[in-house]
Amino acid sequence: MMCQAMSVSPVTTRQLERYVSLIERALSRTLSPVKGSPPHLEEAMRYCVIGGGKRFRPLLCVGASEAVGGSPRQALSAACAIELIHTYSLVHDDLPAMDNADERRGRASCHRKFGQAMAILVGDALLTRAFELLSRNGVPNAMQIMRAIGEASGTAGLVGGQVLDLQCGMGNVECGMKQLEETARRKTGALITASVVAGGLAGRASSTALTRLRQFGQRLGLAFQLRDDVHDGDGLVKAVGRNAVERRVQTLIDQAQQTIAPLGQRAWALRELADWLATN
Amino acid sequence: MMCQAMSVSPVTTRQLERYVSLIERALSRTLSPVKGSPPHLEEAMRYCVIGGGKRFRPLLCVGASEAVGGSPRQALSAACAIELIHTYSLVHDDLPAMDNADERRGRASCHRKFGQAMAILVGDALLTRAFELLSRNGVPNAMQIMRAIGEASGTAGLVGGQVLDLQCGMGNVECGMKQLEETARRKTGALITASVVAGGLAGRASSTALTRLRQFGQRLGLAFQLRDDVHDGDGLVKAVGRNAVERRVQTLIDQAQQTIAPLGQRAWALRELADWLATN
Repeated sequence: MMCQAMSVSPVTTRQLERYVSLIERALSRTLSPVKGSPPHLEEAMRYCVIGGGKRFRPLLCVGASEAVGGSPRQALSAACAIELIHTYSLVHDDLPAMDNADERRGRASCHRKFGQAMAILVGDALLTRAFELLSRNGVPNAMQIMRAIGEASGTAGLVGGQVLDLQCGMGNVECGMKQLEETARRKTGALITASVVAGGLAGRASSTALTRLRQFGQRLGLAFQLRDDVHDGDGLVKAVGRNAVERRVQTLIDQAQQTIAPLGQRAWALRELADWLATN
Repeated sequence: MMCQAMSVSPVTTRQLERYVSLIERALSRTLSPVKGSPPHLEEAMRYCVIGGGKRFRPLLCVGASEAVGGSPRQALSAACAIELIHTYSLVHDDLPAMDNADERRGRASCHRKFGQAMAILVGDALLTRAFELLSRNGVPNAMQIMRAIGEASGTAGLVGGQVLDLQCGMGNVECGMKQLEETARRKTGALITASVVAGGLAGRASSTALTRLRQFGQRLGLAFQLRDDVHDGDGLVKAVGRNAVERRVQTLIDQAQQTIAPLGQRAWALRELADWLATN
């Protein structure tokens, strides 16, 4: 995971920060106590979601809505659902049976703080809450959004990527560059792409605009994962070296920017987020 | 869990069995290999779902659709989604950090067969697949069904019930009869109620019929859990004795039957399922 604070050019920082606080408030509402929920569970869910993370995915989601002429607000449910899914995957990934991570986002991981059983259930609850959220009234194109997010989170996306990762870790499978890229594409790329697509759907994008957004998401998603590898010295970096990977990241980001050029000024947030990735 | 084979009166056995095979075929289709999914993950998901379980919840679901004038088929996606959610909860519940169960449905539990990490991911994948399934075209009242299932599976339902159960197990909380009933109502009752309600929604029930179905589900769900306690000697049985619990189960089932009496002959499957519970 990338842990840097977000640094963007001064002009638009304020605007992106406004989006961040819009997202933080929406997440907080989403995780406000539900009648009949055990308080200890609600507390643990909030611990994992609130006050951590750079909100890259939900920012892409609200940015994509605006890029196609929608409002950031109408993409907020989708944005929150995606952040809950991203967080659930981190909580389960950190478990002793998986990555066995003691820390996450600069503090104790969920199972270190609340115990393993609770961490399993917190992940389950976050995933369920994500889909509950999307099933409420008022989400434009809700079914299509749900399908895009479901596919990106499922066996051909996020969960499938985790399984491939596991198999690499255990040495059961030949893990060449192809396998590493495939793992990255699913574990990280699929949900980043879905963030952009879901935002576009919430903003009622035309099919042409949606195709552009999807391609932007795919390129950005791969760049994101490769940049992660550069920070960790993992994956492709070991195979082809840091400089080669850096060049590839820059090319992917340039191509991503070109993809959304026809969307004009309204795509400013997507552009800022791609710029941020280029310089962090 | 109840493990008896299903025994119903001869006349309708054939009809319920036809439903069971309808459900089995639908589950098998739902879990047929998805393009891009790791085969090992797909295999583990099938191992957990196919060829086990009495399909009580999906039977209630298709039966409820027929009870309000719909076809069993139009409730099949909801029925499968519910069975996937039920199964995911068993897979996670069996994990060493939770109940640490070596066996499930007469064979090795998921983590004993595939390892803990895989079992965590299999549960995640089944839960995600359930919502993916509901987001596909052709499910009548899909959003309402999703909301009903989401709420029943979330923090105020299934997952919340697991947390209460955990707290009882760890002795952190005073676990009197009220807490035990509350835990049962959420852990088991909520999803059984949602099975009946989702079937009704898929069958396009009127709001009056839906209210009847909900009440039927609530009574049956509590009876189901109490009967479970009788088999295990758990919960209320310890507090008030086997005979008292048995009388309560019979009363609940009688009341459930009365609730759906106005639905007439079309509710035959629901009646059979309640009868089955009364004699098993």
